[in-house]
Amino acid sequence: MRAAIYRGPGDIAVEDVSKPEIESPTDAVVRVTHTAVCGSDLWFYRGESDREEGSPVGHEPMGIVEEVGEDVRSVDPGDRVFAPFKISCGRCEFCRKGLHTSCVNGDSWGGDNGGAQGEFVRTTEADGTLVRVPDRYADDEATLEAVLPLTDVMGTGHHAAVSAGVGEGDTCVVVGDGAVGLCGVLAARRLGAERIVAMGHHEDRLELAESFGATETVAARGEEAVERARELTYGGPRHVLECVGASSSMDAAIDLCRPGGTVGYVGVPHGVDEAGLDVFSMFQENVTLRGGVAPVRAYAEELLADVLQGTLDPSPVFTKTVDLDGVPEGYRAMDEREAIKVLVKVDH
Amino acid sequence: MRAAIYRGPGDIAVEDVSKPEIESPTDAVVRVTHTAVCGSDLWFYRGESDREEGSPVGHEPMGIVEEVGEDVRSVDPGDRVFAPFKISCGRCEFCRKGLHTSCVNGDSWGGDNGGAQGEFVRTTEADGTLVRVPDRYADDEATLEAVLPLTDVMGTGHHAAVSAGVGEGDTCVVVGDGAVGLCGVLAARRLGAERIVAMGHHEDRLELAESFGATETVAARGEEAVERARELTYGGPRHVLECVGASSSMDAAIDLCRPGGTVGYVGVPHGVDEAGLDVFSMFQENVTLRGGVAPVRAYAEELLADVLQGTLDPSPVFTKTVDLDGVPEGYRAMDEREAIKVLVKVDH
Repeated sequence: MRAAIYRGPGDIAVEDVSKPEIESPTDAVVRVTHTAVCGSDLWFYRGESDREEGSPVGHEPMGIVEEVGEDVRSVDPGDRVFAPFKISCGRCEFCRKGLHTSCVNGDSWGGDNGGAQGEFVRTTEADGTLVRVPDRYADDEATLEAVLPLTDVMGTGHHAAVSAGVGEGDTCVVVGDGAVGLCGVLAARRLGAERIVAMGHHEDRLELAESFGATETVAARGEEAVERARELTYGGPRHVLECVGASSSMDAAIDLCRPGGTVGYVGVPHGVDEAGLDVFSMFQENVTLRGGVAPVRAYAEELLADVLQGTLDPSPVFTKTVDLDGVPEGYRAMDEREAIKVLVKVDH
Repeated sequence: MRAAIYRGPGDIAVEDVSKPEIESPTDAVVRVTHTAVCGSDLWFYRGESDREEGSPVGHEPMGIVEEVGEDVRSVDPGDRVFAPFKISCGRCEFCRKGLHTSCVNGDSWGGDNGGAQGEFVRTTEADGTLVRVPDRYADDEATLEAVLPLTDVMGTGHHAAVSAGVGEGDTCVVVGDGAVGLCGVLAARRLGAERIVAMGHHEDRLELAESFGATETVAARGEEAVERARELTYGGPRHVLECVGASSSMDAAIDLCRPGGTVGYVGVPHGVDEAGLDVFSMFQENVTLRGGVAPVRAYAEELLADVLQGTLDPSPVFTKTVDLDGVPEGYRAMDEREAIKVLVKVDH
């Protein structure tokens, strides 16, 4: 089969590799039809985090079940499914609590199970990991493109909103206008926020934020952005969604949060260890830092229900579509910020 | 009047200074009878944080109201009162929410209002700041010594437990065996914790922790301490009280916390900016960091009720008593860890 392989910073190649096969009774093999390039893929693409050369890439698979192990009960060959960016068992203490990312039987995509930017992937723990899309939507392209972000960015934006404690009537600020930030706006609106201030650096993305439900936008940078957001929220919001993970955006989120408020953070921390988090500001104003890697499996059913009934549609975050051979071009477009998020339609 | 004055690292002098007077209608002057030396005083004493030379020290005053401004309604001259380590108005948005440390009219002790380690202090915002001790206990020495920690360490330990989300039947770990950590043990027990593991470095303090309600103690250091606490709690507690504020103890608290759990932190962060917080570990396991400088005024009434009815007694944290002239000796004893916390009985 063909799959996108990491060959070093700036170098993604689509190559022939061996197709993953069922290895244990709880496995399933999925023929990937749709997947995406993630902002977090850019860290290794840019050489800013380590990744083994020669490893398959991609962690947002959607497709058709090809084959299942003998113990798999929840899906059958031919079913339309998607899977979160983490494999989880659904049975352990943490999965039962909705913290699937800490699953004791968990695993990641991209090893010998294949990367999601390829023709096939194998999931261990198929019953715990795969989410079935009802048959009547199984081939509806518009629905599938709205469901695909549930593999990662929509669940992650939702986790930011949940972690920040956003509820009915609240005012919140969303830091970051990438795909996760935009999904954070959708999530905050879905949870009933009355005022949603979106902060970012790109006019076109902030326009999309407005169409997603942002009531105000702030396009400034640094201290000016913080001041403007604080002004708009009469002294800072009680709920901040930090959707970037950079040291500067974490500090901005903490800085603009109202005393006693909560920063929900979901961006993979990047450079935060080196630059240091502004713990003293948090301490002085009792700002809570809550969140982490999003257990998107925990949110899949409720978000899927809303997508299927048409009240939630994150698909506009896909501003570019490529086929499997176009994956390297997809990375380039995201790296150069030409695309917010790239949809990959995998041809077989 | 006489008051303890900071003269530089390692140098506290008891000197004659001018007595604070009523300056505005909301002021009160308190004749200090009891106060204490705080672990946080050691930061400037050791030269590890800046403080203006010549400034009066002490922030845990208890005494008798000497004089009040014409707008003061809640206390009269002759009343027995104590005050938290921060002055707060009781009326603003933050005070009404119980976040008195973010009071928009707030102030600190130690400027021209006098330090609490002196004969008199003036509080602005007397109605919002001073807590009245009922007359029947006003001269009961044992009760007063049990009330005094409500000015700081008992409220701070309580804030750690509340921030960590400790409740009925919970298992928690308390990091730190100083006065705040010991009060954290008392607070966790009071909130219904079933298992309380106290971590520290001093056998005698851990014995006191046991008498305060710790069910187990860990006297090890570093990774060994974390491993031992994790073992005792079958993989880490969901609730960790971080009662030190050093970079190493913050990292230990985050490290041993169960995935999805909460670290309640109340120690003034010290060296954390330089060493960097382990944000990546927090992120990976969705560990929440909640807390900050404790709004002890918010907790004063409920804790006072328990002290007065005899179900809460933090006074054993005072292991040494001095008079006003003995304040320098009190700093020395705490600096050299001879005393857990020093009680100052102010003679007039």
